[in-house]
Amino acid sequence: MSTIDVTALREAVGLRDVAAADAARARLDSLVKPLGSLGRLELVAAWLAGAQGSCPPRPLERVRVVVFAGDHGVAAHGVSAYPAEVTTAMVHSIGAGEAGISVLARCNGATVRVVDIGVDADLPIDLTGHKVRRGSGSIDRENALTSVEADTAFTAGRSIADEEVDGGADLLVPGDLGIGNTTVAAALAGAALGLGALDVIGTGTGVDDQAWARKAAALRDALFRARGLDSDPIALLRTVGSADTAAMTGFLVQAAIRRTPVLLDGVVSTACALIARKISEDAAQWWLAGHRSTEPAQHLALDALGLEPLLDLGMRLGEGTGAMTALPLLRAAQALLAEMGTLDSLQLTPQVDTDAT
Amino acid sequence: MSTIDVTALREAVGLRDVAAADAARARLDSLVKPLGSLGRLELVAAWLAGAQGSCPPRPLERVRVVVFAGDHGVAAHGVSAYPAEVTTAMVHSIGAGEAGISVLARCNGATVRVVDIGVDADLPIDLTGHKVRRGSGSIDRENALTSVEADTAFTAGRSIADEEVDGGADLLVPGDLGIGNTTVAAALAGAALGLGALDVIGTGTGVDDQAWARKAAALRDALFRARGLDSDPIALLRTVGSADTAAMTGFLVQAAIRRTPVLLDGVVSTACALIARKISEDAAQWWLAGHRSTEPAQHLALDALGLEPLLDLGMRLGEGTGAMTALPLLRAAQALLAEMGTLDSLQLTPQVDTDAT
Repeated sequence: MSTIDVTALREAVGLRDVAAADAARARLDSLVKPLGSLGRLELVAAWLAGAQGSCPPRPLERVRVVVFAGDHGVAAHGVSAYPAEVTTAMVHSIGAGEAGISVLARCNGATVRVVDIGVDADLPIDLTGHKVRRGSGSIDRENALTSVEADTAFTAGRSIADEEVDGGADLLVPGDLGIGNTTVAAALAGAALGLGALDVIGTGTGVDDQAWARKAAALRDALFRARGLDSDPIALLRTVGSADTAAMTGFLVQAAIRRTPVLLDGVVSTACALIARKISEDAAQWWLAGHRSTEPAQHLALDALGLEPLLDLGMRLGEGTGAMTALPLLRAAQALLAEMGTLDSLQLTPQVDTDAT
Repeated sequence: MSTIDVTALREAVGLRDVAAADAARARLDSLVKPLGSLGRLELVAAWLAGAQGSCPPRPLERVRVVVFAGDHGVAAHGVSAYPAEVTTAMVHSIGAGEAGISVLARCNGATVRVVDIGVDADLPIDLTGHKVRRGSGSIDRENALTSVEADTAFTAGRSIADEEVDGGADLLVPGDLGIGNTTVAAALAGAALGLGALDVIGTGTGVDDQAWARKAAALRDALFRARGLDSDPIALLRTVGSADTAAMTGFLVQAAIRRTPVLLDGVVSTACALIARKISEDAAQWWLAGHRSTEPAQHLALDALGLEPLLDLGMRLGEGTGAMTALPLLRAAQALLAEMGTLDSLQLTPQVDTDAT
């Protein structure tokens, strides 16, 4: 049995500030532009105002990507185009500032933290403060985690969110890293939504036909193992999740408790969001979707969450890269709402003062 | 008769560097990520490498928005939600740094220049160095420009591109400003593509049903006046264009001659691109589309140009704002290609060196 008090978490999640969002909408209508002409940027601006409880919203100055790294037993059964050792190599690549997310974060004035939640290797001590175990169980045939491990991982994710919010983060981006994690994410989404393996399976990093068939079989078996658990989010994480996805789910719940907006990334973070929403419906208020991935499970999870991604660029890299590519749109929305002039200031008189500029 | 030597312009337009684009694609395949997993950002990166003739491409350090301002006689006949005096007021708003494009350019490290090509007012001298006339003719009943004015406007646009490239611009964004200009853009696109008024009409800044009907009638009359001219781009600009769109078209042609990439914005710049491509097919190599506007004429022009916008956010503000919102995606593509590590550098051995980071 889990020791996570889901009811207490649900009650701790706050709501966005309706008055600030209303003020944002009114202000948007007063700016020097045709009504509604900033399109979805207007919705983003109002969302941000509501999340911050401030109109205009403040600039996003400390955006933090947290990459949850973990290995997955199912990867040993040929569901990925890459061997599991790539997970560890990519942790080092992020450490060296050479991964996709490293470059995009640098480009956009954000910072990246990678945490080893369940990598199947001995990693440097500064990454392992929240490590739960080496690799998670192969979800097609065994539970990903013990009950204690699931609670530990979920709580680790909550602690990480607390650390980041206490450190001043004003926007959080959950990134994923781990060979096999799209299989786990598809299983979580499928189990949460009551769907079958062929509904949620995707090509991940780019599998061939043989690997796809193995992935489909693994998902079918995992979804069979998860039957009847769809109303128990912690049990889903334990049964067909992993240490890293359990941590990411806790992270999403705690971010909402801490009233901190989150920009979701690809299939892994969106599947975790689906599980987190089973803990708190209101938590979803604190999330936007950055990018539409190529994974069907993400599309289904987004539909269930009522989220429409800002970007659709065919990215499928993970690590938080889709969300980080969308970050400038949030910054643009904030700046437009905060800095544009108002219609009042326009000199709408037939006679123009040519000295005005 | 026009004195523009279209053949000479056509011959002056260069091609992107195929070798640099090939090198970019090869490099992209060597980076620490699954093949193709950056989606459209990979296409943008290779395009930029080809445009610069450099792999990896250089950072975009001097992005210039040039807003072509002009009034349109057709606006006096009720085709817009706003009176023509708004054009002048918005020129001042850009000068004050309070317009949408001002904010977005500031937010993205770009700069804005507004040029008065055909505003129906006396504007400050620093904006009017390329002014052709006060307002353009009402295209539903008269030519927008005389033959001399059309040549002058087109040549002014070329000069402006030269000024910007000589000033070091490494990416140009054409912005539009002028009440009535979506009517003119729709007429240009319809005439260029042989389409009818109801194919190309849009709601512009947000017209009501009565204004929509007037706009449809004006477009019908304009397209009737333009029949038989679809193979004569300068005649199209003179007959159903305007001073500002003629200048923007010259600007696009000259940018291609100067081997300078351009990020297209909404319906006005895309319609001008369609006319510019009638002068030189190769010019289109130098353009990307930033944002899908809400104007049908833009969609049709994009299809004809073979361009798919990077963003689709429902924006319809003009001024270059759609393109400027997409600019960070070009910067992301450049940085990823230039800064990501290669697969060679990954330590893909079962034994991990824990001191590596």
